Amino acid sequence: MDWSWTVDKAIPRPLRVIFRGVGQVFFCGNAVTGLIFLAALYVGGITAGLAATVGVVSSTVAAYLLGFPDDEIDAGLYGFNGTLVGPCLFLFLEHSPQLWLYVVFASILSTIVLAALMRILQPYNIPASTSPFVLTCWMFMAAVFAFDSFSRGPILPAASIPTEVAYISMIPVEMWHVAVSKGVSEVMFADSVIVGVMFLVGIAITSFRGAVMALSGAIVGVITPVLLGADKSLIEMGLYAFNPVLTMMAIGWVFLKPSKKSAVLAFLAGMLTVVCQAGLANFLTPIGLPTLTFPFVLVMWMFLFAASKSKYWGNS
Amino acid sequence: MDWSWTVDKAIPRPLRVIFRGVGQVFFCGNAVTGLIFLAALYVGGITAGLAATVGVVSSTVAAYLLGFPDDEIDAGLYGFNGTLVGPCLFLFLEHSPQLWLYVVFASILSTIVLAALMRILQPYNIPASTSPFVLTCWMFMAAVFAFDSFSRGPILPAASIPTEVAYISMIPVEMWHVAVSKGVSEVMFADSVIVGVMFLVGIAITSFRGAVMALSGAIVGVITPVLLGADKSLIEMGLYAFNPVLTMMAIGWVFLKPSKKSAVLAFLAGMLTVVCQAGLANFLTPIGLPTLTFPFVLVMWMFLFAASKSKYWGNS
Amino acid sequence: MDWSWTVDKAIPRPLRVIFRGVGQVFFCGNAVTGLIFLAALYVGGITAGLAATVGVVSSTVAAYLLGFPDDEIDAGLYGFNGTLVGPCLFLFLEHSPQLWLYVVFASILSTIVLAALMRILQPYNIPASTSPFVLTCWMFMAAVFAFDSFSRGPILPAASIPTEVAYISMIPVEMWHVAVSKGVSEVMFADSVIVGVMFLVGIAITSFRGAVMALSGAIVGVITPVLLGADKSLIEMGLYAFNPVLTMMAIGWVFLKPSKKSAVLAFLAGMLTVVCQAGLANFLTPIGLPTLTFPFVLVMWMFLFAASKSKYWGNS
Repeated sequence: MDWSWTVDKAIPRPLRVIFRGVGQVFFCGNAVTGLIFLAALYVGGITAGLAATVGVVSSTVAAYLLGFPDDEIDAGLYGFNGTLVGPCLFLFLEHSPQLWLYVVFASILSTIVLAALMRILQPYNIPASTSPFVLTCWMFMAAVFAFDSFSRGPILPAASIPTEVAYISMIPVEMWHVAVSKGVSEVMFADSVIVGVMFLVGIAITSFRGAVMALSGAIVGVITPVLLGADKSLIEMGLYAFNPVLTMMAIGWVFLKPSKKSAVLAFLAGMLTVVCQAGLANFLTPIGLPTLTFPFVLVMWMFLFAASKSKYWGNS
Repeated sequence: MDWSWTVDKAIPRPLRVIFRGVGQVFFCGNAVTGLIFLAALYVGGITAGLAATVGVVSSTVAAYLLGFPDDEIDAGLYGFNGTLVGPCLFLFLEHSPQLWLYVVFASILSTIVLAALMRILQPYNIPASTSPFVLTCWMFMAAVFAFDSFSRGPILPAASIPTEVAYISMIPVEMWHVAVSKGVSEVMFADSVIVGVMFLVGIAITSFRGAVMALSGAIVGVITPVLLGADKSLIEMGLYAFNPVLTMMAIGWVFLKPSKKSAVLAFLAGMLTVVCQAGLANFLTPIGLPTLTFPFVLVMWMFLFAASKSKYWGNS
Repeated sequence: MDWSWTVDKAIPRPLRVIFRGVGQVFFCGNAVTGLIFLAALYVGGITAGLAATVGVVSSTVAAYLLGFPDDEIDAGLYGFNGTLVGPCLFLFLEHSPQLWLYVVFASILSTIVLAALMRILQPYNIPASTSPFVLTCWMFMAAVFAFDSFSRGPILPAASIPTEVAYISMIPVEMWHVAVSKGVSEVMFADSVIVGVMFLVGIAITSFRGAVMALSGAIVGVITPVLLGADKSLIEMGLYAFNPVLTMMAIGWVFLKPSKKSAVLAFLAGMLTVVCQAGLANFLTPIGLPTLTFPFVLVMWMFLFAASKSKYWGNS
């Protein structure tokens, strides 16, 4: 909405860049949206909010110090991976004072990895998206496991394949809105209905179509695993939904010319993301790593690369 | 042969594109050759033939609907991955009515993955070949294993490393032609001498050199593992041969300027493919996935990328 | 130093190319430096020296026969991967007469893989470095394990994650220079102080900054794992140091415009390489493969790709 951009531009530059960085987690380079996201993170938990703050500041400052392009920094592009690195490490690793140091170091690294991937993908005009966050966190988790086999924190159920699917039944009607909202909130590792709703409001301020796609993605991320017979508790926590949320926003709103065709493609991509997550978890679980948002990244890359060959989207 | 192209052009366009798609499994964009391949598949088994048919039609129609380039569709390039997806899923997954749906969905996906990889490889002028089929089938198999640990169908011995090589002895002379023929037929998952012979005839109609390379690849794929002491039963089923068949056709006939040097290179690449398959199986077996044609894809990519730097093939 | 280049040019061409190939292991395309490295290898052990000699000759001759660019061959670029393949296979596989054949075959393959990767990375102006050596050796080891589960030779401790870190204490002062020197020698699989010193002398002949970076890398590769609490015996053998040695030479001397900023970046990259090695070992150990120099390759690639986007190094 227009007013949000007016406010965005009125915020002092350093703060604006940081808020935009948070907003970019959902593809929204708008400081108002980012501020709402950050507030939602603190609502979800003080530690998660602080970790995200440390992450976004570290990764953005690193981009300045390393001399990366100013326009990209201004758009918040060097902030969203750090935003995700913080809460992620606090969720998966044991809490300790030096964990804050790890968050700073990992966020700086995510900025370097982002610049590298942007350079690699530049000839194809394809975004790196959250892949630097995923790669950096995987490397840190694997390294921590290697150096100290006792420092693992609570592992999210997302990290485990449902080896025994106890009871496959439809999710009760009253649980649906919970599963869908949590699906949106889990994008930033929050397991909370109110955080999910705040995220949706923040997105809607930047783009109504974006919010519709996010909501659709969460619904697809609940229906598809139900149909495929996945573990009910994972579905109810929204752990199959946060990837399709991002996929549908990327395909149906951000990166392809918006149209009915794009919306159909986004649905297809959303469903596929669920299948891809199940397949990827099969590989990663034995080595103790969660899929994070890599299913979204893989499916988005495939669809965007493919779309560039199509007469419908190739020139968009 | 010239007459085959005359017939090819006389076939109505939709049928021609489908048949060419089947032909492209062995790099033959010729409808007559494709028709023979399809007939051979039905000879090998009605289900495999039907699955291939559903696959090639689904992937080709998807390419039309998604607006991919007409000339590529006409050449059958969007058909051969679907052709392989069908019989592959029917071999490795439990048979059920919804498996037909999976074949349709996976074939559509293989078309999207193909377009993506063609775009990625375009600056290098390197073909994607059967990699979309491999990636799509791996993802579907891994996802099915994740959602339901009881739905596995009969796993081909190809999927297992010979952990205990019972008896390593030379293959009896009378088994040689069986192993070699089956090596050709296993490219499309058929375990049959007659199917292998029909495939060779079909290839010869398009190119004599192509058929010679296919036959040489099958022989290399029997001799090399015998020398390296691989499991005899796998060799006799042609399960070490189908990858070198494709490698030698690609290097010795299709993608490099044909010459004696190319033929020597093709032999080297063929032998290497066997080594690569053994190495790759070492990684994939623990997670329950077969190598499919990925050893061929990897070796072909390496040799084609390298050849583009050579003064002998760089300008071809 | 100038005199070394005069001598370099006075050596007959075939010998010069071979010596330069050995020198390129540490980025030194100088025959004098290469000759010192080769002498050091023989000092470390006759077999390792011979294996390196067979490797460097095979890979360089293969590049001639395959028609790769003359200027690249002259610079020794097709020699250093073969130089590493030889001692590597002799360290990790059971010694037998046919192992010499494997070394020849693997060295030829490393040349093909190098040409392929140079072609892939060419649009980005990024070096392939030792990645062909790593990929080729991984494939050969995996294949040998697949064909014969009893042929494994002594596996370096590097291949094993310290599952039980017996005692984490500071390394005694008198051990420091040992650990640091061995860290340099382990780049070519030698576990020897004198070999490490000879390597440093050889590097200093080509570039003083290069030698400083190598030494700094070895020190970083001892301090960082001590701080992170890694297994003491691995640190003392220099097995955490050979990767940062290469990383710091690449970032701080060879590929980025030398400056104080580059030196700081090199230190960051060196520390990160240790973390990356621990993370990578976590994945590779279960399948029986050592990390070799892949941590260095990954971190170097990330930093070079990223640097090309920076205003500080982008135009260098």
